Amino acid sequence: MKKTRKLHASHINMSHGSGGKAMRDLIEDLFVSCFDNPQLNALEDQARFDLQSLQQYGERLAFTTDSYVVDPLFFPGGNIGTLAVNGTINDLAVSGAKPLYLSCGMIIEEGMPVSELREIVQSMKAAADLAGVQIVTGDTKVVPHGKGDKLFINTTGIGVIPQGIEISASRSKVGDKVIVNGYIGDHGAAILNARGDLALDVSLETDCQPLHELMSVMLAACPDLHAVRDASRGGVATVLNEFAESANVSIRLDESCIPVRNTVRGVCEILGLDALHFANEGKLVATVPADSAEALLHAMQSHPAGREAAIIGEVVEGPAGRVVIKTGFGGERILDMLVGEQLPRIC
Amino acid sequence: MKKTRKLHASHINMSHGSGGKAMRDLIEDLFVSCFDNPQLNALEDQARFDLQSLQQYGERLAFTTDSYVVDPLFFPGGNIGTLAVNGTINDLAVSGAKPLYLSCGMIIEEGMPVSELREIVQSMKAAADLAGVQIVTGDTKVVPHGKGDKLFINTTGIGVIPQGIEISASRSKVGDKVIVNGYIGDHGAAILNARGDLALDVSLETDCQPLHELMSVMLAACPDLHAVRDASRGGVATVLNEFAESANVSIRLDESCIPVRNTVRGVCEILGLDALHFANEGKLVATVPADSAEALLHAMQSHPAGREAAIIGEVVEGPAGRVVIKTGFGGERILDMLVGEQLPRIC
Repeated sequence: MKKTRKLHASHINMSHGSGGKAMRDLIEDLFVSCFDNPQLNALEDQARFDLQSLQQYGERLAFTTDSYVVDPLFFPGGNIGTLAVNGTINDLAVSGAKPLYLSCGMIIEEGMPVSELREIVQSMKAAADLAGVQIVTGDTKVVPHGKGDKLFINTTGIGVIPQGIEISASRSKVGDKVIVNGYIGDHGAAILNARGDLALDVSLETDCQPLHELMSVMLAACPDLHAVRDASRGGVATVLNEFAESANVSIRLDESCIPVRNTVRGVCEILGLDALHFANEGKLVATVPADSAEALLHAMQSHPAGREAAIIGEVVEGPAGRVVIKTGFGGERILDMLVGEQLPRIC
Repeated sequence: MKKTRKLHASHINMSHGSGGKAMRDLIEDLFVSCFDNPQLNALEDQARFDLQSLQQYGERLAFTTDSYVVDPLFFPGGNIGTLAVNGTINDLAVSGAKPLYLSCGMIIEEGMPVSELREIVQSMKAAADLAGVQIVTGDTKVVPHGKGDKLFINTTGIGVIPQGIEISASRSKVGDKVIVNGYIGDHGAAILNARGDLALDVSLETDCQPLHELMSVMLAACPDLHAVRDASRGGVATVLNEFAESANVSIRLDESCIPVRNTVRGVCEILGLDALHFANEGKLVATVPADSAEALLHAMQSHPAGREAAIIGEVVEGPAGRVVIKTGFGGERILDMLVGEQLPRIC
């Protein structure tokens, strides 16, 4: 039985990124002992899997990457670590894939408290366990004070797509219904509030959650989902614009059907922003055949991650790439992608 | 035929990380148009591959990640982009894997000149083409001025390991020969010199190069390679300490056999550092059965990436994890892992 190296420093310093002894202490004491799985524990420079064992889940591999630079690192309902795990799980899940393995690349600013880093790593482990994925390979870099901002995390994920699933932004068809799985804008509002810029006395929590189980429920109810994306940066509005552009269709939303919490609506009114542009970290948007939309909706509402699912609009004939929204006052306005940067470092 | 979006800005601003319109312009004009392959061009949130098509290369998947924070971004012989592609290719290659697909996660500091970013992206494409790998999925984040340092890149790679190859740090055996594929320390010395700290009038170039072809040549000559690692951060000394520790053996090097350029030796003497601790970006270290070492050496020397390959020592009985070096003066000293941080942000 080999002795695990111990990390004695209270703050990260440049030697923790050197490739030498201090880095090994950090990796063994923090990452390996927490993530704890045979792949990572082997301390090789790469994880290795039987291709055959992957084939039990399906016939196609899904591969996706995201870096997380959220500010602040900790916020109500989560932290950068839960975001980094669930965000990449969701980018796999919306293709229909079963998420399996993640890599974890950390860029740490010199001076970061080890206690905070440990809390984040433990959150990542908890989120990974909850979703049944393993963090199997990693990398750690340290940059001097003032050349980073505490912590950036990259997670890259591998999953397997079951046979017969063909989800793509380009598959939205005229007549399809547009569905979301619940309240939108929670994550964006929670981050804004956590920064203290709003000085609001309200409780706003991120919606950060994994969506692969909900996707399984959805695929069981409607194997022919057309387009599905998680609505993170840029919000629901940006995803719908991508759908409309990719499939050369128009999309019409009914504002009265879009689930938005009153607290989030309040934040939007104060700031003159649209919840449809706010980031989500546990919300997906889908276009689905009209004849299975109701059954799908009921199936979604039976799952905790889809309790407040709603049909919010439909795919219509019209100029390619146009998204319009029927407002509460009976009018119609064009809903564009996010223009400019209203909410920096939201994820 | 869809019109490609155009990026008009001369410098990166926060809106390029918003998830909205400006980000799409950046992604389409810079990344998609340059990396240009069907997976990336589809602009889905994940790349997708047939598992069956991967099986033509072997039976096991290799999966590895690295973030690159090198300073400066450009240096003689390469830039952060060539490093990010070749570094991850090499982490796959040293397992015996054929490198196939990379992801690319960019964290860009606000204010970065688009022209520099474009040059780096073009270098990545050239390096990927040279090695026959594709950059199939990506992510872009922008952080405010002063919260990053121009550009950090994460690349995560997938490759396939052919049948019958079992390379592992733990497999080094007493009697094995230790081989390197050429001059060591070039990358570390080149970065130090590029920072202008040395004020030396010498030409020092990174050794940044892909090693998967050399690995193929090596495996053809000696299918039973025991341990192989690329000696990046921490240098050859750190890799050998990892080998000795993992396999519970000692390693003895012969200093007179270690290939070091005179210019690099000069840098080491000025700074009181050891080239064995300097980073390399195109050098691997291997332990191999003694009876195939000479044939292997000749095979390596027949390939451009192994021209100056040398047998530098052997695996011996002795305390687990000890690496000693026979010096030019007939003495012996212990060669430890890198302690502390002598060369920050070398990769």
